[in-house]
Amino acid sequence: MKHLLDTHDLTIEDVIKLFDVTDRMVEVNSRQVPKVPALKGKTIATVFFEDSTRTRLSFETAAKRLSAEVMTFLASSSSVNKGESLRDTIETLSAMGVDAFVVRHKSSGVPAQLTQWTNASVINAGDGWHQHPTQGLLDAYTISREFNQKDSLNGRTIAIVGDIKHSRVARSNIDLFHRLGAKVVVVAPPTLLPSHVETWPVEVRSSIDDVVDNVDVLYLLRMQLERMESASIPRLSDYTKMYALTPERASVLQPHALVMHPGPMNRGVEITVDPANIPGSRILTQVANGVSVRMAVLFTLLGGDSVLSGGES
Amino acid sequence: MKHLLDTHDLTIEDVIKLFDVTDRMVEVNSRQVPKVPALKGKTIATVFFEDSTRTRLSFETAAKRLSAEVMTFLASSSSVNKGESLRDTIETLSAMGVDAFVVRHKSSGVPAQLTQWTNASVINAGDGWHQHPTQGLLDAYTISREFNQKDSLNGRTIAIVGDIKHSRVARSNIDLFHRLGAKVVVVAPPTLLPSHVETWPVEVRSSIDDVVDNVDVLYLLRMQLERMESASIPRLSDYTKMYALTPERASVLQPHALVMHPGPMNRGVEITVDPANIPGSRILTQVANGVSVRMAVLFTLLGGDSVLSGGES
Amino acid sequence: MKHLLDTHDLTIEDVIKLFDVTDRMVEVNSRQVPKVPALKGKTIATVFFEDSTRTRLSFETAAKRLSAEVMTFLASSSSVNKGESLRDTIETLSAMGVDAFVVRHKSSGVPAQLTQWTNASVINAGDGWHQHPTQGLLDAYTISREFNQKDSLNGRTIAIVGDIKHSRVARSNIDLFHRLGAKVVVVAPPTLLPSHVETWPVEVRSSIDDVVDNVDVLYLLRMQLERMESASIPRLSDYTKMYALTPERASVLQPHALVMHPGPMNRGVEITVDPANIPGSRILTQVANGVSVRMAVLFTLLGGDSVLSGGES
Repeated sequence: MKHLLDTHDLTIEDVIKLFDVTDRMVEVNSRQVPKVPALKGKTIATVFFEDSTRTRLSFETAAKRLSAEVMTFLASSSSVNKGESLRDTIETLSAMGVDAFVVRHKSSGVPAQLTQWTNASVINAGDGWHQHPTQGLLDAYTISREFNQKDSLNGRTIAIVGDIKHSRVARSNIDLFHRLGAKVVVVAPPTLLPSHVETWPVEVRSSIDDVVDNVDVLYLLRMQLERMESASIPRLSDYTKMYALTPERASVLQPHALVMHPGPMNRGVEITVDPANIPGSRILTQVANGVSVRMAVLFTLLGGDSVLSGGES
Repeated sequence: MKHLLDTHDLTIEDVIKLFDVTDRMVEVNSRQVPKVPALKGKTIATVFFEDSTRTRLSFETAAKRLSAEVMTFLASSSSVNKGESLRDTIETLSAMGVDAFVVRHKSSGVPAQLTQWTNASVINAGDGWHQHPTQGLLDAYTISREFNQKDSLNGRTIAIVGDIKHSRVARSNIDLFHRLGAKVVVVAPPTLLPSHVETWPVEVRSSIDDVVDNVDVLYLLRMQLERMESASIPRLSDYTKMYALTPERASVLQPHALVMHPGPMNRGVEITVDPANIPGSRILTQVANGVSVRMAVLFTLLGGDSVLSGGES
Repeated sequence: MKHLLDTHDLTIEDVIKLFDVTDRMVEVNSRQVPKVPALKGKTIATVFFEDSTRTRLSFETAAKRLSAEVMTFLASSSSVNKGESLRDTIETLSAMGVDAFVVRHKSSGVPAQLTQWTNASVINAGDGWHQHPTQGLLDAYTISREFNQKDSLNGRTIAIVGDIKHSRVARSNIDLFHRLGAKVVVVAPPTLLPSHVETWPVEVRSSIDDVVDNVDVLYLLRMQLERMESASIPRLSDYTKMYALTPERASVLQPHALVMHPGPMNRGVEITVDPANIPGSRILTQVANGVSVRMAVLFTLLGGDSVLSGGES
């Protein structure tokens, strides 16, 4: 495994192995000094053509805890503005000595394209509507560990609610949840469903009320207001009425059910109840596991030294 | 002491203890390799919702010299722009593993609010007109060390000149200078005085000429042009005529008097003489002490290992 | 040698010594862990008043590989916007404890001016049309190593093509190439030649076709569209017709000839052939050598410990 571009490239054995490494990273992160020298001398470049401070800081924290150097490249303040081609940017950074690129781009397929231009590893940190594989991994990891199911999500029902059509998170999650054995239900207005949803390994429901009282996991998507084509939904308030997690709906969740969200949340849109008041909310657990999963991915791709003992950075 | 929100929360014993730790940090900073492993494995997040490169770099330098990891969060390039709530931002960063937040915000009270949302320490790096406690500490420290008065500012007269009304620096400084035993005089046009100044432990003068030849410290505030309500002063040139430190005024300072300014200076507004030509100017000493004071604050709040020996980072 | 402001300040002996140190840095960069503790405890501030992510990241990578701390100061998000003078900015950063400033500014002479305001070393990372000395050094180093000529460029003919008038790269390169023994030819339309070009140690040609089949190095400059006075060239397409490296022109290059460019390239303007298809292209070698040359410069200016053994950072 050299790159991480798409969850579909991972076998279930790969996923289970990554989860095992993640378990070890969770242990590292619980130490007094949460830092190991595993990737000392490696350089990780975060190359974000679309803003996402949250995801970028998660990867950078992961890299630093493995003692890698971090190079931050933000497109907004770069020669991309002087008309330099994406290829020249990547080749230039690569020539400076980058071992892995972590890339976010608004166009699907850009991370895969990058692998043609560099010998470094490429990690897709979100490309268009296509994929966000570390989000899928951290979500599947979180559910499996919360339910103490080490190697599968067998027997679990997971509902994903919201703008499935434009969501790379949904695409990565559906693939992993399904292949790990879960039953996946998507809940969205017809205009926010992908055109060939019948070919996806999911059941479709059109109201959150069909699922809220019988799922093991209720996964709320962010309404990508900035990415939605006009007129996909009549009014935001209609969306909220039909699809938001309200206090009333939260009250009928099964006692063991988890509530998850990839963040950042639009409070008042897809969620109108304070998640701090939902016992099953694992939204912050997702964030914490995100750092551990990204450490596992970087460690695995860059062939980190297999010892995770403490020590100098 | 877990947080540093307001100088009023500190007892004089706390202040004196911080000054003792600062003395040790000044010694560290004089070494060939000014770096100690005291906070190795800790993560300090600088979260600035209002620009202040100067203050941010001072804190980040302090953190690095104690071997902490630095996470820089600039609101301008963040999901704050996507409508994420402040609370969600802080909870998210916190879940990634932050040990202390250094926060600047244009609204008074935001740092105190943050303590409800995280288990990490919170350091106020300036909130609205309210407080800027590390500025107060570094200023009081600078004066006490310059006058070789280890535990007090007894017997000293300190004039603070300028826009008292809108100044968090003035509020932090007045509190500390007064409680450390100094006599504090504020000098400002009536429109730039706070409404209940008579309840403050200060004397009020309306012209810099009343104080310039008889104070131990002349502390010039920055004219916060960007924050001033319209019409507080008739014209900037009138302000300069009445309140600026001019070459003529500098010439009547007492020989031992210090001139200070929190920076950044508006040359030609509150100061029309080159501070390089004033023997008593301690403006750059303030900057240097700022790093040491912030190291002392981080070290104290995060329970750094008490040994400050050199060593690997 | 305390500062690096202008290639003219370097003797040929200085240059050769820097190249020797660069050879050692190339070796460091080839290691499994390309990092040495030579500048541990030093702080390098990159202070860019003009965007150049590429050059900034090259210097920052160089600093980190020598184990120095990096302080990034971007003018766009700084108190420069609040009207602080350049002098106050530099004095303030200096008081925080900076050992070297790496400065880029749109005005010629700013780096030299800075040396009056700080005791730190100053490295010119490009000032107006004046100089870009590390670019000159990395280009001369690249040519000498590619031709295996350790101490000179004797006997080589180097053509520099493009906007000579506005190019600091051209000024640095012409000086070093000439003094190292090369014959330098400049190729540009009359409007893009400097006014007293007859006093420069160069030959002048007005068409790339005069040189393309007989030079050892073809050095293409970036068309600085953003910096060009209006009407210097009639139309960009005319420029491309007369001065661009096209596939046809590339086909008549001598087999041993090198093609170089300082980046970022305007594909379709000064180069219409894909450099990946030119065997003699050393554009990415320039980038890689850039890190090593900058390591050599920082190491030499800051008196790094002479041992470059591996070890902890």
